[in-house]
Amino acid sequence: MYSFTNDYSEGAHPRILQAMMEANLTQNTGYGLDTHSARAKGLIRHEIGQPQADIHFIPGGTQTNLIVIASALRPYQAVVSASTGHVNVHETGAIEATGHKVLAVNTPDGKLTPALVQQALDTHTDEHMVQPGMVYISNSTEVGTQYTKAELESLSRFCRLNGLYLYMDGARVGSALTSPVNDLTLADIAGLTDAFYIGGTKNGALFGEAVVILHQDLKRDFRYMIKQRGAMMAKGWLLGIQFEELFQNNLFYDLARHSNQMAEKLRTAIAEQGYSFASDSRTNQLFPVFPDQVIRKLAEDFTFEMNGKVDETHSSIRLVTSWATREAGVDQFIQALKNMAT
Amino acid sequence: MYSFTNDYSEGAHPRILQAMMEANLTQNTGYGLDTHSARAKGLIRHEIGQPQADIHFIPGGTQTNLIVIASALRPYQAVVSASTGHVNVHETGAIEATGHKVLAVNTPDGKLTPALVQQALDTHTDEHMVQPGMVYISNSTEVGTQYTKAELESLSRFCRLNGLYLYMDGARVGSALTSPVNDLTLADIAGLTDAFYIGGTKNGALFGEAVVILHQDLKRDFRYMIKQRGAMMAKGWLLGIQFEELFQNNLFYDLARHSNQMAEKLRTAIAEQGYSFASDSRTNQLFPVFPDQVIRKLAEDFTFEMNGKVDETHSSIRLVTSWATREAGVDQFIQALKNMAT
Amino acid sequence: MYSFTNDYSEGAHPRILQAMMEANLTQNTGYGLDTHSARAKGLIRHEIGQPQADIHFIPGGTQTNLIVIASALRPYQAVVSASTGHVNVHETGAIEATGHKVLAVNTPDGKLTPALVQQALDTHTDEHMVQPGMVYISNSTEVGTQYTKAELESLSRFCRLNGLYLYMDGARVGSALTSPVNDLTLADIAGLTDAFYIGGTKNGALFGEAVVILHQDLKRDFRYMIKQRGAMMAKGWLLGIQFEELFQNNLFYDLARHSNQMAEKLRTAIAEQGYSFASDSRTNQLFPVFPDQVIRKLAEDFTFEMNGKVDETHSSIRLVTSWATREAGVDQFIQALKNMAT
Amino acid sequence: MYSFTNDYSEGAHPRILQAMMEANLTQNTGYGLDTHSARAKGLIRHEIGQPQADIHFIPGGTQTNLIVIASALRPYQAVVSASTGHVNVHETGAIEATGHKVLAVNTPDGKLTPALVQQALDTHTDEHMVQPGMVYISNSTEVGTQYTKAELESLSRFCRLNGLYLYMDGARVGSALTSPVNDLTLADIAGLTDAFYIGGTKNGALFGEAVVILHQDLKRDFRYMIKQRGAMMAKGWLLGIQFEELFQNNLFYDLARHSNQMAEKLRTAIAEQGYSFASDSRTNQLFPVFPDQVIRKLAEDFTFEMNGKVDETHSSIRLVTSWATREAGVDQFIQALKNMAT
Repeated sequence: MYSFTNDYSEGAHPRILQAMMEANLTQNTGYGLDTHSARAKGLIRHEIGQPQADIHFIPGGTQTNLIVIASALRPYQAVVSASTGHVNVHETGAIEATGHKVLAVNTPDGKLTPALVQQALDTHTDEHMVQPGMVYISNSTEVGTQYTKAELESLSRFCRLNGLYLYMDGARVGSALTSPVNDLTLADIAGLTDAFYIGGTKNGALFGEAVVILHQDLKRDFRYMIKQRGAMMAKGWLLGIQFEELFQNNLFYDLARHSNQMAEKLRTAIAEQGYSFASDSRTNQLFPVFPDQVIRKLAEDFTFEMNGKVDETHSSIRLVTSWATREAGVDQFIQALKNMAT
Repeated sequence: MYSFTNDYSEGAHPRILQAMMEANLTQNTGYGLDTHSARAKGLIRHEIGQPQADIHFIPGGTQTNLIVIASALRPYQAVVSASTGHVNVHETGAIEATGHKVLAVNTPDGKLTPALVQQALDTHTDEHMVQPGMVYISNSTEVGTQYTKAELESLSRFCRLNGLYLYMDGARVGSALTSPVNDLTLADIAGLTDAFYIGGTKNGALFGEAVVILHQDLKRDFRYMIKQRGAMMAKGWLLGIQFEELFQNNLFYDLARHSNQMAEKLRTAIAEQGYSFASDSRTNQLFPVFPDQVIRKLAEDFTFEMNGKVDETHSSIRLVTSWATREAGVDQFIQALKNMAT
Repeated sequence: MYSFTNDYSEGAHPRILQAMMEANLTQNTGYGLDTHSARAKGLIRHEIGQPQADIHFIPGGTQTNLIVIASALRPYQAVVSASTGHVNVHETGAIEATGHKVLAVNTPDGKLTPALVQQALDTHTDEHMVQPGMVYISNSTEVGTQYTKAELESLSRFCRLNGLYLYMDGARVGSALTSPVNDLTLADIAGLTDAFYIGGTKNGALFGEAVVILHQDLKRDFRYMIKQRGAMMAKGWLLGIQFEELFQNNLFYDLARHSNQMAEKLRTAIAEQGYSFASDSRTNQLFPVFPDQVIRKLAEDFTFEMNGKVDETHSSIRLVTSWATREAGVDQFIQALKNMAT
Repeated sequence: MYSFTNDYSEGAHPRILQAMMEANLTQNTGYGLDTHSARAKGLIRHEIGQPQADIHFIPGGTQTNLIVIASALRPYQAVVSASTGHVNVHETGAIEATGHKVLAVNTPDGKLTPALVQQALDTHTDEHMVQPGMVYISNSTEVGTQYTKAELESLSRFCRLNGLYLYMDGARVGSALTSPVNDLTLADIAGLTDAFYIGGTKNGALFGEAVVILHQDLKRDFRYMIKQRGAMMAKGWLLGIQFEELFQNNLFYDLARHSNQMAEKLRTAIAEQGYSFASDSRTNQLFPVFPDQVIRKLAEDFTFEMNGKVDETHSSIRLVTSWATREAGVDQFIQALKNMAT
């Protein structure tokens, strides 16, 4: 049984575990005020070319989203998200639990555009309605798509003109940035958003996300927000060490690239067998459409999530690759698919 | 200038003011524990035929909604509402401010059905998503439509089978119950919902809504909820007096009936002039579609809200009548419309 | 049976009811955007000598407190209050329900001083603890005491130097300002606080408090806050009319003065009978200490609240006078006390 | 420089790291639904003798506290805590951020008793005040003290009779249970509380706490609460592995015992030098009182936290030992102290 269920089925890249092992018995200052964290922040600041950026390490993605959003918004403000956005559907109302509405906008491809955000502005115009205060995007998105530089520039300009913070959920930004069709860099993202996070959990770390805060107004007292929401690790250096490793020898990109290569191999083979996709993804999440009997057969040897019914006899599934995906697993999947065709 | 902008442009029915005047210098117990409130509760319990119902008086509708919903739901639960529902759009995120997501469902006519609620259940299935815990409906709805007895029975049964509380926002329940096409009574509503409120503000009171709690589980410590949200009036007997008047001589129904009669007169005349309506309403809110030039002309003598563009040259407006609407104002509007036709 | 239980046992001063009666059938714009509210705001701005102040009318005091505090504080900030403060004890956790801690400070007399607030600052120093962001005081206080001009100046300066907003709960500010030992004016208060409210409910209005916002940062989008918390009355002009009456002929002060005169009469007579007081009040709340048998006897003809046990055989009670207190009731109380002495 | 600042300066016990290393490339089910977590839960259920207990693993202590408390309380309820309690002071208002007041009670030794909790009940009696719904205790406490079996039994009975949940924060329960003066077992705690947590972070794990839920009513939908608050780790098996190691060979107790032994050695030596302690602790936190010049001298070679001024020339400090404290560090500290005496 091989799993394409998600990109967090395995632990951490061995170099990361090794670094944790070596530092294990050294005494560190707590709560992220240690030298590992300081060095990791320096590496990221250098990578994004923003020496003034504030960087914080947080154990998980839902925590990160709720802390950034709750910190940025006034009590009556809302965050605009694609209806497929993680904050809208898959965080059990974490944003609402901080008091804020998520204004969900339907999109064809999981991506927001100025025109789509404008809809939310047009329908929220006075004090009887929530006030849009932030735009939340994910890159890559929950359906595997990704933003081009032109798209992000356009959205960024729109947000600035309309007094909206732009925040990017980068749980899978590694995969987006190493996709064959990508034209963005982390530095571009840092230049075009007010805050974003770099996902470690889904790209080779045991756990951990690096929040990067660019806008001056969002920096204030952010550590209070982290602590209040229970996201300030006692042994914060564990986060620092992991991001040190990820950013000191391009490990972050290497791992994401491997993930994408495994996805590309799957994608090409699936397409060659004549199957289509429910979403046009060049990142590490694929949504192929198969006859239901093919899916049942595949499920005998592989695990994956169902994505949705397409028609009476077809459904789409979600295949996720990761830094740890073994090529043998991919080959086995392709072979299984070929066997069914013959 | 005559206003059809809303049903809260005037004060209270003179009998209500008179009663407040007479009781003005009598000393009362505070916080709703007075004899007027007790008597008003008795009248309502009798009217709905539910001697065990808990009844509380609350100054306004948004307060009422947020208190009932926050009291009923566990922290991770959500309330299902039509996307047009007052709690979804026009309460500035009041429900979210108590920590709960509003799950908005698109409807053709502002009304929820078992099939529509089932959609929310089908897409919220595990702990990664909010859990639907309550269904919120309004009667009459925000677009002037109303529930039939069969519709409410069907929704009620569905909710009970699925462990969902059913709550009705009755800000305009008076208008619904006295509509020419109505087949429901307050007693029916009390028998089919877990909680609902009877709107006074929009039906002849200065202010005030009467929450009726039927389900045993929702009764617990409700006064704590009212107090915490700042909705427990020091001079709570002011609410009691008003509902005494409304329910002791059918005043509640008489006022709503007048409101509907004024709307019917407008509706008939508008239809006779060949205009259509954006919503099929037989209550005190009408949404006629007019050429934009007609609207501009009407706006010289009448105030009303714009409802939405229909096409390049037509829009719908909202006309609201009330217990205080003068028939002369209605006649004047009809005449103005006729004059434009000729 | 005559009640000294509180200052909200009766309705409104007849002039206020009369004004509501006269305006009853005139159509008004909703939600506080009407001409009565505009005029009332003008009168208050003139009274306090602050033409730039923002003024909003809110139905009740708990609502007012929670809206002002939730609007002013960042999510991790706390409000400092005397442990006797209304927000700390008697609002069912309304402030905490908006997410904020109340930092309670023990005081000898219900009043905060720079030294007392400094204690809260000294013990809350980093991101592991809440950050004090606002100081809440009440004037008169919950134990009937009041701030002198020197005391308020000193606290005001301290707050400004320490980056703390200063907010005054003026539920009984009328009584404070007309007390025989008062040296403050509304204009002084407006000059020394960042926000305060003028209580109408306890001084002759049916209901209603006027929030005055002085600090520029606290003005932003305040109507959104009001609406979200369910405190924006549909018929907002009802609040406007009441404050028009209160501030157009000194009615506000006249009513408060009567209240204090009744209290002074009680206080003098009680003292003359040789009884002491648990709190040194010159406002409309008195806390005399009586033998328990005296209290039992008084309770046969008067209602009042118990305040606390003093020793095995003595307790203090709370006597509250108001704009509506009849001198005959006061005389009757005094006579009853005298009768017991003989 | 040797640190006695806290018990989370180092990483994890090598056996735990080793286990994580070995499992690193095995694919696991996400979100805590893996076989390691299942096995660890079984070990803990066996240890406490409660086969029906629900167990969940959560990364950190503040998260754990806020999730348990927010899950247990109705919106208007409060949690009673010693004023020194972690939830009252050192969680940046995390509990209030979920909407609940912490009712702080002053104690002589950081421990709650029935009489102390009764004070909170006596002063919170109706709907104008929060309703106490849960009692929070920590064992060992924030000042190093610990509950005896008789004390816990008495508090437990009191809570049950008064309808209060009893919840124990066991961040340092390992140290409490292996203290020379302890007479409690984990099984006792499970029998006497409604919920508690077993601290891993401060006792040899990289991170992680095991929440044990005994009361049936507190079990409902707890995973929704975890997810909503961002505490459901994608790679939840990392928590499972750690608690497997801690509970399969008594490692949990061995590590705590070492911590206490190091503290005892320090305590005995400090007492022998004639110094007193600000708190009577037999666990891994000591609060010796030293002359300020001694403290300055010690600070040249050791790090620790200041605890408070005792008089003009003396202060107490906090010394914390852990599973990783080296005896050489302890000896060095003792020697330094002795050197100063001579």
